[in-house]
Amino acid sequence: MMFEAVPQSMSFARPLALRSGASIADYTLAYETYGTLNADRSNAVLICHALNADHHVAGSYAGKPKSEGWWDNMIGPGKPVDTDRFFVIGVNNLGSCFGSTGPMHVDPTTGRVYGADFPVVTVEDWVDAQAVLLEALGIQTLAAVMGGSLGGMQALSWTLQYPDRVRHAVVVASAPNLTAENIAFNEVARRAIVTDPDFHGGHFYEHGVVPKRGLRIARMIGHITYLSDDVMNEKFGRMLRSMTEGEAAGPNYRYSTQQVEFQIESYLRYQGDKFAEYFDANTYLLITRALDYFDPARAHGGNLTEALAKATAKFLLVSFSTDWRFSPARSREIVKALLDNRRSVSYAEIDAPHGHDAFLLDDARYFGVVRSFFDRIALGNEGGRA
Amino acid sequence: MMFEAVPQSMSFARPLALRSGASIADYTLAYETYGTLNADRSNAVLICHALNADHHVAGSYAGKPKSEGWWDNMIGPGKPVDTDRFFVIGVNNLGSCFGSTGPMHVDPTTGRVYGADFPVVTVEDWVDAQAVLLEALGIQTLAAVMGGSLGGMQALSWTLQYPDRVRHAVVVASAPNLTAENIAFNEVARRAIVTDPDFHGGHFYEHGVVPKRGLRIARMIGHITYLSDDVMNEKFGRMLRSMTEGEAAGPNYRYSTQQVEFQIESYLRYQGDKFAEYFDANTYLLITRALDYFDPARAHGGNLTEALAKATAKFLLVSFSTDWRFSPARSREIVKALLDNRRSVSYAEIDAPHGHDAFLLDDARYFGVVRSFFDRIALGNEGGRA
Repeated sequence: MMFEAVPQSMSFARPLALRSGASIADYTLAYETYGTLNADRSNAVLICHALNADHHVAGSYAGKPKSEGWWDNMIGPGKPVDTDRFFVIGVNNLGSCFGSTGPMHVDPTTGRVYGADFPVVTVEDWVDAQAVLLEALGIQTLAAVMGGSLGGMQALSWTLQYPDRVRHAVVVASAPNLTAENIAFNEVARRAIVTDPDFHGGHFYEHGVVPKRGLRIARMIGHITYLSDDVMNEKFGRMLRSMTEGEAAGPNYRYSTQQVEFQIESYLRYQGDKFAEYFDANTYLLITRALDYFDPARAHGGNLTEALAKATAKFLLVSFSTDWRFSPARSREIVKALLDNRRSVSYAEIDAPHGHDAFLLDDARYFGVVRSFFDRIALGNEGGRA
Repeated sequence: MMFEAVPQSMSFARPLALRSGASIADYTLAYETYGTLNADRSNAVLICHALNADHHVAGSYAGKPKSEGWWDNMIGPGKPVDTDRFFVIGVNNLGSCFGSTGPMHVDPTTGRVYGADFPVVTVEDWVDAQAVLLEALGIQTLAAVMGGSLGGMQALSWTLQYPDRVRHAVVVASAPNLTAENIAFNEVARRAIVTDPDFHGGHFYEHGVVPKRGLRIARMIGHITYLSDDVMNEKFGRMLRSMTEGEAAGPNYRYSTQQVEFQIESYLRYQGDKFAEYFDANTYLLITRALDYFDPARAHGGNLTEALAKATAKFLLVSFSTDWRFSPARSREIVKALLDNRRSVSYAEIDAPHGHDAFLLDDARYFGVVRSFFDRIALGNEGGRA
């Protein structure tokens, strides 16, 4: 079942106009592809990533058996998104920190590392950049665009920005915009990073430091919002660290404000430490802002039905019952607005305990729904060619 | 309706044994009282405070009309807890930073400011200290003990530690222990404080600095969890700061990762800044740990019914529908365990939009329930004296 992934990249000299009014020239996009583009170029599927993922969606790198892509359970030969039938493309977004041009790269116009001066990018900008890459790959129309969370926002935006170039959209655990609470969590994470003395106004690279304190806090907050209260109680509950360390004294409180006392603390610290080792602080700011800004209804006085009138793709939306970050109610807003426009929409609300994280986990009902949707796309494709 | 509050304090030489095994001697408790203790000393009501409140529960200080106590809407002449009938006592807890002995005071045994060496205190320790103060005030039995949130935990603990000394308990927006998610939020806040370079291992006083960055983050996280998603959307939604600043350009995005863009960000930064000016960082660690540790069922293998068998007081429990920090389900656990023990329990689940904060807000149904409960206590008292 394992197949080899090969990272690729392409550079573009022509400036890309951004929603902020700025533009970016001489940028590179890292990407990967799996499967084979068919003769009429009708089987391409674009996968959009969320906050801390990248273009490495599926497969493993040669000689690195544990390097599976972040959605490898969903995408591959014989999997719900079957790379024996579809040509799947993963792209690392502009401003990210995994190969595409981002804040840690040199701004060719100044000769200085971008840092905090990297232009603010939006979901719409990412979609534009993805469209440029697809054009270069000779793909005019997508059989489908698919993403979860922030990736789902990109999938939705594709159907609005390029309605003629996308036939199906799969929007998983997403929302038509962020709530005040969502923005609030993003803001706390950003403040933790920006007020870390090692941030140096976003130009920490020159100082040879990384604002790890802030990144750790940001990641800990993120993890709390990815999980449901239920799954946290089930996985960690009030279990003490001392229980697993087999302390002779047994599971007693240590009565310490700074030491790890509960398992959940140990888990969060570990996640924070790990993240701070590899994620770029300026990228964190940019990506959370892209989340904050996304709001297709905004140009229509808040009317989502009006905003989605442009979309002509056939949709599959999936949400998860315990996801309090992007709750089912938010997905239903999109479903309703599409139905108001008499669009074709399938919607599955999966009763899963895992919270927002569920969109990355193997679940028979969830995967079954996605598999059926892609089976139908494939049949339509084959029918079209017959 | 305004009445004058007078802060008082009392010092105790005799060491108080703490649950950690440590003890604290020569400590001071700040407190206030309102109303008059009746002849048979049967009308005393103790109010327990939560994280950032103190002994100043009701009334205002002379010449400071805007200095109302934190529960002044609930407690006072003619109010639900009527100080014309009850003698109400507010106590600042040990380890807090508003007058009672805490981390910023000098440890008499070392001559050095306690800082991070202040002993870890638990809900049970606070109740013991409150009992010592009440003894000194000549109060053997409480007509009622009352608190919200962490204050509710103290009220519950009173009925277990001193069942013969408390006739009624009012436990508002509380829980029998913290969930893993609750602990997780506390831990992120603590890490933000502890990893602030100005924390200096908890001995920042000597350095003439305050870990304000950490305190700000801690408070911002707290505020998100105090409010409901609904009330945040209603109060702030996706409103931009530029809308209220009446920028000529109108409500446009600024496309900035560090400037305030949304109203909710402005609100959170303001709350964080304000808090960092007055709250002690070591106190924050201590109080969140007291929350983490509280778990009366722990000594009974997690069996809350067994744990509450000791309680003989008559209970009123109140919860709020949109409180996701201490949800109604948590209050119902306490109600169930009390009913299992055939105790007298009234329970009101108030449908209020304000989240955890609702326990501090004026709500006719909530205040009506509390007023009725105290009316009955007063009638019982008068009956007893007749």
